[in-house]
Amino acid sequence: MADAGRQPIGVFDSGLGGLTVVRALTERLPSEKILYLGDTARVPYGSKSGETVVRYSRMSAHFLMGRDIKILMVACNTASAYALDALAADLAIPVLGAVEPGADEAVAATVRGEVGVIGTLGTVRSGSYPRAIAARDPRIRVAQLACPLLVPLVEEGWLGGAGDRLEDRAAAAIAERYLGELCAAAPNLDVLVLGCTHYPLVRALLARTAERLWDRPIALVDSAQAMARAADRILSQAGLLAGGAGGLSCFVTDDARFAEVAARFLGHPIATVEKVDL
Amino acid sequence: MADAGRQPIGVFDSGLGGLTVVRALTERLPSEKILYLGDTARVPYGSKSGETVVRYSRMSAHFLMGRDIKILMVACNTASAYALDALAADLAIPVLGAVEPGADEAVAATVRGEVGVIGTLGTVRSGSYPRAIAARDPRIRVAQLACPLLVPLVEEGWLGGAGDRLEDRAAAAIAERYLGELCAAAPNLDVLVLGCTHYPLVRALLARTAERLWDRPIALVDSAQAMARAADRILSQAGLLAGGAGGLSCFVTDDARFAEVAARFLGHPIATVEKVDL
Repeated sequence: MADAGRQPIGVFDSGLGGLTVVRALTERLPSEKILYLGDTARVPYGSKSGETVVRYSRMSAHFLMGRDIKILMVACNTASAYALDALAADLAIPVLGAVEPGADEAVAATVRGEVGVIGTLGTVRSGSYPRAIAARDPRIRVAQLACPLLVPLVEEGWLGGAGDRLEDRAAAAIAERYLGELCAAAPNLDVLVLGCTHYPLVRALLARTAERLWDRPIALVDSAQAMARAADRILSQAGLLAGGAGGLSCFVTDDARFAEVAARFLGHPIATVEKVDL
Repeated sequence: MADAGRQPIGVFDSGLGGLTVVRALTERLPSEKILYLGDTARVPYGSKSGETVVRYSRMSAHFLMGRDIKILMVACNTASAYALDALAADLAIPVLGAVEPGADEAVAATVRGEVGVIGTLGTVRSGSYPRAIAARDPRIRVAQLACPLLVPLVEEGWLGGAGDRLEDRAAAAIAERYLGELCAAAPNLDVLVLGCTHYPLVRALLARTAERLWDRPIALVDSAQAMARAADRILSQAGLLAGGAGGLSCFVTDDARFAEVAARFLGHPIATVEKVDL
């Protein structure tokens, strides 16, 4: 068991957004060794078909399995939506997606019985959140909205501070346009799931905008934090938590513009990164 | 010669943006048969490294060459920037990129001798426009700016009408933020190259914003129109123009969300599309 605990945690994402999951993991489980793979040569998955996403996800999982991981975390919501069942069937280790932990927390948090989900086009179209929430409590209503501009907004670093710079005004107009549409469709919701690993970086903007639009507190479910909590629980129950010094090794399939964006997601500069072919 | 003229024109792009080139071609040369390949499974190229872009471009060119095209048009600015020399060396037919035609028209249009170029991160980082313009007239100053949010803005269909809807306000703030930065860096420019096939769809917004910021007329060079004019010239000089009825055949590597976005770029619904593996 002690030996098994020393194996790394494998995390993969279509790009760099999954580093928000790494950040949540290292804050919660600082003794864990983490292998991160970002399929940056083929990012984003959110606009691709299910068939393509499953194929790419299998290649990423295969790479990490070759490095003897103890759990696979699929940090990409789109990949979780389309490929989780296939990966769980393929692999002999626990596979944790981005959807189930967020669905658990959303169901626990709603009082009015209405939950909103925002994510990429792929995540929304897959229907994975409504399905996961219905499996937990079929009485809960779910309103979804795809917000394709939020990912490039975050990657540009326009995070929507409260100031009056043009990038803040652009971010504010985008958030208000999307959440306004959701508010008109679901005036009764009290929980909003951030169903994309990029969104924690605009969490403050989304929280501020949501509270103003619905005119009451809205509970935000951050799928990165929810995944870290779920991984802690799974590893702990299996006696697979590591001791000693943790660490992060990063792999990408294309290294353009890596460092700047990675540091934004991770909260600090990244030490080393290796480019790999899948 | 008459037989050669009946071969199709091949156009490829990383995604659907190159359909703005198809649109310009069909308006100008309605008798031409056009084969369009959008590498939608791996879009966008703009954030990927040169090495990756060259590899993907070779696969797309190989596919179209297998269908006996008479000219290859690389409608993706990023692919033109990185892969044009490699493709021209590989192939025995004319290869026309997106950069050279736009550079020609920019050099002809500037009176003050200062040209602005906006495009994806990949196009700007490659330096292909400054190089192409310097090769034509080394006295011309070139100011570049990457505008990563414009592509998702166009794909979302927020084209920045003059109204006061939230999506118009978002588009206006984004355009003003980017062009404002360019105006501060290059107050003297009088020509602005739209160095990305998506940008013609926000041409009116960019023209309006540029005229207000620089406070005088700014000539916009549309690389899709420039490519169609250049293809006309090349085929005409080689005696390779087609007669009779033209037509468009579309191929994509992933068919998610194709129809809606394609119609926006093309200006009309698309009849048939075939999904292919490269």
